[in-house]
Amino acid sequence: MAHATNPQAEEILDKEFKCLNAGFVRLVDYMGGDESIIQAARVSYGKGTKSVNEDRILLRYLMRHLHTTPFEMVELKFHVKLPIFVARQWIRHRTANVNELSGRYSIMKDEFYLPSPEVVKRQSVRNKQGRAEDNVPLELQQKVLNMLLEDQRHTYERYEELLKDEIARELARINLPLSLYTEWYWKIDLHNLLHFLHLRMDKHAQFEIRIYAETMGEIVKRVAPMAWEAFEDYVFYGERFSKTELKAIADNLDTQKITKEYLEKYNLKGLEADEFLEKLKKLKS
Amino acid sequence: MAHATNPQAEEILDKEFKCLNAGFVRLVDYMGGDESIIQAARVSYGKGTKSVNEDRILLRYLMRHLHTTPFEMVELKFHVKLPIFVARQWIRHRTANVNELSGRYSIMKDEFYLPSPEVVKRQSVRNKQGRAEDNVPLELQQKVLNMLLEDQRHTYERYEELLKDEIARELARINLPLSLYTEWYWKIDLHNLLHFLHLRMDKHAQFEIRIYAETMGEIVKRVAPMAWEAFEDYVFYGERFSKTELKAIADNLDTQKITKEYLEKYNLKGLEADEFLEKLKKLKS
Amino acid sequence: MAHATNPQAEEILDKEFKCLNAGFVRLVDYMGGDESIIQAARVSYGKGTKSVNEDRILLRYLMRHLHTTPFEMVELKFHVKLPIFVARQWIRHRTANVNELSGRYSIMKDEFYLPSPEVVKRQSVRNKQGRAEDNVPLELQQKVLNMLLEDQRHTYERYEELLKDEIARELARINLPLSLYTEWYWKIDLHNLLHFLHLRMDKHAQFEIRIYAETMGEIVKRVAPMAWEAFEDYVFYGERFSKTELKAIADNLDTQKITKEYLEKYNLKGLEADEFLEKLKKLKS
Amino acid sequence: MAHATNPQAEEILDKEFKCLNAGFVRLVDYMGGDESIIQAARVSYGKGTKSVNEDRILLRYLMRHLHTTPFEMVELKFHVKLPIFVARQWIRHRTANVNELSGRYSIMKDEFYLPSPEVVKRQSVRNKQGRAEDNVPLELQQKVLNMLLEDQRHTYERYEELLKDEIARELARINLPLSLYTEWYWKIDLHNLLHFLHLRMDKHAQFEIRIYAETMGEIVKRVAPMAWEAFEDYVFYGERFSKTELKAIADNLDTQKITKEYLEKYNLKGLEADEFLEKLKKLKS
Repeated sequence: MAHATNPQAEEILDKEFKCLNAGFVRLVDYMGGDESIIQAARVSYGKGTKSVNEDRILLRYLMRHLHTTPFEMVELKFHVKLPIFVARQWIRHRTANVNELSGRYSIMKDEFYLPSPEVVKRQSVRNKQGRAEDNVPLELQQKVLNMLLEDQRHTYERYEELLKDEIARELARINLPLSLYTEWYWKIDLHNLLHFLHLRMDKHAQFEIRIYAETMGEIVKRVAPMAWEAFEDYVFYGERFSKTELKAIADNLDTQKITKEYLEKYNLKGLEADEFLEKLKKLKS
Repeated sequence: MAHATNPQAEEILDKEFKCLNAGFVRLVDYMGGDESIIQAARVSYGKGTKSVNEDRILLRYLMRHLHTTPFEMVELKFHVKLPIFVARQWIRHRTANVNELSGRYSIMKDEFYLPSPEVVKRQSVRNKQGRAEDNVPLELQQKVLNMLLEDQRHTYERYEELLKDEIARELARINLPLSLYTEWYWKIDLHNLLHFLHLRMDKHAQFEIRIYAETMGEIVKRVAPMAWEAFEDYVFYGERFSKTELKAIADNLDTQKITKEYLEKYNLKGLEADEFLEKLKKLKS
Repeated sequence: MAHATNPQAEEILDKEFKCLNAGFVRLVDYMGGDESIIQAARVSYGKGTKSVNEDRILLRYLMRHLHTTPFEMVELKFHVKLPIFVARQWIRHRTANVNELSGRYSIMKDEFYLPSPEVVKRQSVRNKQGRAEDNVPLELQQKVLNMLLEDQRHTYERYEELLKDEIARELARINLPLSLYTEWYWKIDLHNLLHFLHLRMDKHAQFEIRIYAETMGEIVKRVAPMAWEAFEDYVFYGERFSKTELKAIADNLDTQKITKEYLEKYNLKGLEADEFLEKLKKLKS
Repeated sequence: MAHATNPQAEEILDKEFKCLNAGFVRLVDYMGGDESIIQAARVSYGKGTKSVNEDRILLRYLMRHLHTTPFEMVELKFHVKLPIFVARQWIRHRTANVNELSGRYSIMKDEFYLPSPEVVKRQSVRNKQGRAEDNVPLELQQKVLNMLLEDQRHTYERYEELLKDEIARELARINLPLSLYTEWYWKIDLHNLLHFLHLRMDKHAQFEIRIYAETMGEIVKRVAPMAWEAFEDYVFYGERFSKTELKAIADNLDTQKITKEYLEKYNLKGLEADEFLEKLKKLKS
């Protein structure tokens, strides 16, 4: 059991996955995988657990019923290079371990985030926090990029000048912009990582952090493929409805056809099908 | 704003709410309420937040979109008396602050959990972790209670004998049973408390901890009534469906009637109604 | 007990304490104080605790012996305005609750950190992370400040131009500098706050965050004066020595004079004096 | 770098280390070691870190200056079998991931903690929480052990009787004693593990948990030997003195002889010696 490694994961270990214009995500190390989730869940059952004999069914049961602690038994460590404004959103997830490049100790490198032209967008009117979907005129795109680039160059020259004057690094860096790249080691357990990915792969997350989240999703898929599948089914592509929404659905839902046999064509079987039928029954009552 | 108190909460402050045969929950102190959730959310919006002018709408928006950090701005502190086996389930929630009575320092009191006759049930066959619903014969109920009571008395006499022999308290107590009552101060923020209540008010939670969770739910309702209402609507009485379940629902759902006007009779309006219609549209696509 | 308030703390509630050129710290709310630390500690002792009858002695005992959980029973909530580079150091403390102004939702204000001339210093040669102590020539000070100010103005004009072109706020802000002010609500328990202050009031912490930490120290002193006194004695002005350092000390320490009577002139009495004598005995053995 | 394994650790992987009469600790998996602490620390220094070229010196510097985050980059997973009263002390450390055997799902085994005769001790009069050091008469030892054993047998027979009556497992187990063995998987990062060991290897910790802590200490020594050495020097065998204690020490300490040369015979060199001399200078001032 110990040091079980997953060939799919080993293949990409230490490989840099490019993100944005100059960033990356790299899986540095990991501990465990689907089998350690199962192993941890099984300790709860002790003897007499013979009936729960299929790993995938058990793992899906855990995900479905929010039995989240077994997923904490898998640990992943990443090396990430990312713009500071992305780092500021990322660090809000407090359950991880972090070691970041320090501008007090080190001279920051001349690397800045510059968006691709096609992601330069106007402020959304509907969505107070995001970008509109429409493209902006090419010349506006270009103007924005030029302005950003020009200022990044200027700021870095100023930083270099302050360093040449031997001004303390911790002071010289204060006018560096949020688009500057930083780096960190970031270590987190799988349960908390999936929660992070749920929020940061969401369409409301800022485009730039979404790129990183999607890349990490691909990595998780290799480290714990069954957990990832369950996450996609139940959490990421699942949907939550409020009490009121459920009423409106129930009043317009024809449940007559929905039997255990019927559900087989959706590949819903066994306990999972039973639980679904029970949810529908409760809905209609 | 500071030290805003809620008359509904003040009324019950320090009052013991009985739980089980000898336990209780008592709200010892609290900081904040609905208004501090709003206050914290508004700092994110800074200037230009005039449009989000209705507190309840904002608070429900936060709950619906898993913007959980503002709910962390409310803090509650409880004094609880509870059987050790309940304490062992409870303590698994790691985000709280705890100070528990110590059997190393103190002589434990002669107080044990004895179930009411009607909650003595057989092992459920369907549910590996719980009780069957059927009542057991009265004489079996009585037999069980007599056995429990007799052993509790015996164990406590033994404990007293060991203490009389001046055996160290930390050793004398090792044969005390899980049904013994302990006490603690337990302090937690509202977001994490709602998560605790979601899991522990659930029908799969053990009956005995559910009693405590329901009592604390009543207390939260007084400290932060709008947050509680949103929690009930979106989380507690809401429902999650997997990708596959959503397909089965979509194939049997008639969405023709469901318009924004139609939803008004469910009291679903504004952004909340728009978001629901969008979810349905995605479902049918 | 509930809602005990401390007149010393009430006096400053909601008051803005200026930090740096445009920042502040404001105590928005608090729950508990010295008496709730005592209350929580006493639950561990249950009956038979009559002998530990003096609060101050108990509280100092807790601090001395790293019994930290009772200090978690006090909660403080601050409103802080601070430069982003300070916020980035601050947020590394993960045990707090935070709601920060968002540059995705809001238009950032034209407020930047500009150091006072006298804190513009050269890079320390001894200390890789900090500033030298010597003053720099006045003209270099002025040159640095002029450069910083000029660039801050320029950057903000660019930001305004991007906003005028209706570029999404989340993009328009990416070249804003780390010296820009942000704001947040920050809530933390006293144990974790003292740990934060221990690290951030330290002379190795960057000057700018130290200013905030010292201001918060003054606030804590009013909320929980006995806890603060114990923190200063045992932690902040205390010192740790390694096994090897202890040997070098022991070989040059004359312990003959150091008796319980002698220690009274240092105001070291009772259990505290006994424990010190025991430490010295162990040292010399 | 990735998946670096330590031969010393590999040797004991999965090996059961006996604790108490029927418990054990087993290292199930680990991620990283001394080299990942160094790796994480170095990311903070980026370029220009050539001067900190010796790993051991860097690692000791981190430990001495409470730069604890790099130690979080190492993760250890244990399988532990332990009495419930030990588990209750252990679980107070909230920064770990846990999956415990559940008495709701599983039938608990007939295994109880029975102390060795020589650790049956009287209540300490000096130390409210612990045992006296003196041995108790052999016949009292025997009486205590007989009582404990007899009651453990009786209780387990009762448990079996309730199970035979098909009473729900979650109820049948409530009179099982705190001396019953349970099992769990427990996963934690090295920084938090060292903190746990500091508190639980301490002479004030209950004997029974100390046995587990010491066993885990031996395991850590194999996973991260340099970190363990630094922990012993600076933390475990180090000592903290309060402001007042420091004064009493300073007044009786002859620092004349203590020079950098002198310190070499204690193997205190370089920056470590400089820092010590500085502490002494501050002390005498």
